[in-house]
Amino acid sequence: MYAAPSIQVLLDELGRLPGIGPKSAQRIAYWLLNADRDEALRLADAIVQVKNAVHFCERCFNYAQDDLCEICASPTRDATTICVVSAPHDIPPIERTAVYEGVYHVLGGALSPMEGIGPDDLRIAELMARLADGSVTEVMLATNPNVEGETTASYIARLVKPLGVKVTRLASGLPVGGDLEFADEVTLGRAIESRRTL
Amino acid sequence: MYAAPSIQVLLDELGRLPGIGPKSAQRIAYWLLNADRDEALRLADAIVQVKNAVHFCERCFNYAQDDLCEICASPTRDATTICVVSAPHDIPPIERTAVYEGVYHVLGGALSPMEGIGPDDLRIAELMARLADGSVTEVMLATNPNVEGETTASYIARLVKPLGVKVTRLASGLPVGGDLEFADEVTLGRAIESRRTL
Repeated sequence: MYAAPSIQVLLDELGRLPGIGPKSAQRIAYWLLNADRDEALRLADAIVQVKNAVHFCERCFNYAQDDLCEICASPTRDATTICVVSAPHDIPPIERTAVYEGVYHVLGGALSPMEGIGPDDLRIAELMARLADGSVTEVMLATNPNVEGETTASYIARLVKPLGVKVTRLASGLPVGGDLEFADEVTLGRAIESRRTL
Repeated sequence: MYAAPSIQVLLDELGRLPGIGPKSAQRIAYWLLNADRDEALRLADAIVQVKNAVHFCERCFNYAQDDLCEICASPTRDATTICVVSAPHDIPPIERTAVYEGVYHVLGGALSPMEGIGPDDLRIAELMARLADGSVTEVMLATNPNVEGETTASYIARLVKPLGVKVTRLASGLPVGGDLEFADEVTLGRAIESRRTL
């Protein structure tokens, strides 16, 4: 109401970003207004560049700037293990653990009869094609630990096991550093079922 | 390390925004990557537009798209009362109260001997020029309730009072809906000193 039209447009656009409420949008908008012209335009340019340069990796469907993503193109990654995830944004948290050295396959979603998402809507055929030459020895299913993710993992496990490829699933259990008192019963139940012998 | 270069640039640029940590930057970056091209570019365009179109209002130094800001240009605002603020971002919170109907004057900072900011670094001469024709009857000082803001308010009050213009200051006291138990002693002390007779 009191803001210049172009400021209001910026506030609206910022407010559509995930996790950005009206107050954050205003704080960012005023930061951009106050910033050097070049500094503010660097952000605009980064958005344009990313939309121009980034597409899907032709092998794993992660975001990539060349034909292959950085991970598929890396000679140091172990191409005999494929970690299957729902979306590209699931890859950075796994990479940050520095525990996984294999490659990825991005399904582009999870099976959901409720939302009408079936096997043909995911990149499952593309995963099977990657297994065809027998060089892959393990498929690690890292879909989310919820109903859709578990359904998707079970479905893919059923397809892959007959090929003689080892199929694994991320463990469920108590978060490290978490508090037993505040664990939900499903997670705690899973932790009990999956208890380790010491 | 594992992100495409243009994605890393976007993450860096987003991470420079106020209140945006690495996790928020990543969430926003993946949202932009996943968004329609047009949708993502609307944000880039809004930033470019705002840096091209917005400058300072020639009267009050609020952000403006025309010569005058929306508030100075409005025929319904009371031009006999000027609210003095440090920065343009102080105006939206005052506007949201819907209590104030006057106009504004943006100083562009606050007096701070520590940081070497003196009266000549603020738009105090421009404020005095606006008072010259005698049409303004009240100057409401809405600089921040901290050392720099109080110093600035005192300094301006000393200049303006001799002109016969009423000079007021925003009240300090307990936040409405706040809890006396958790009030800091300075605020509580100010609330006691400024107590009202009921």
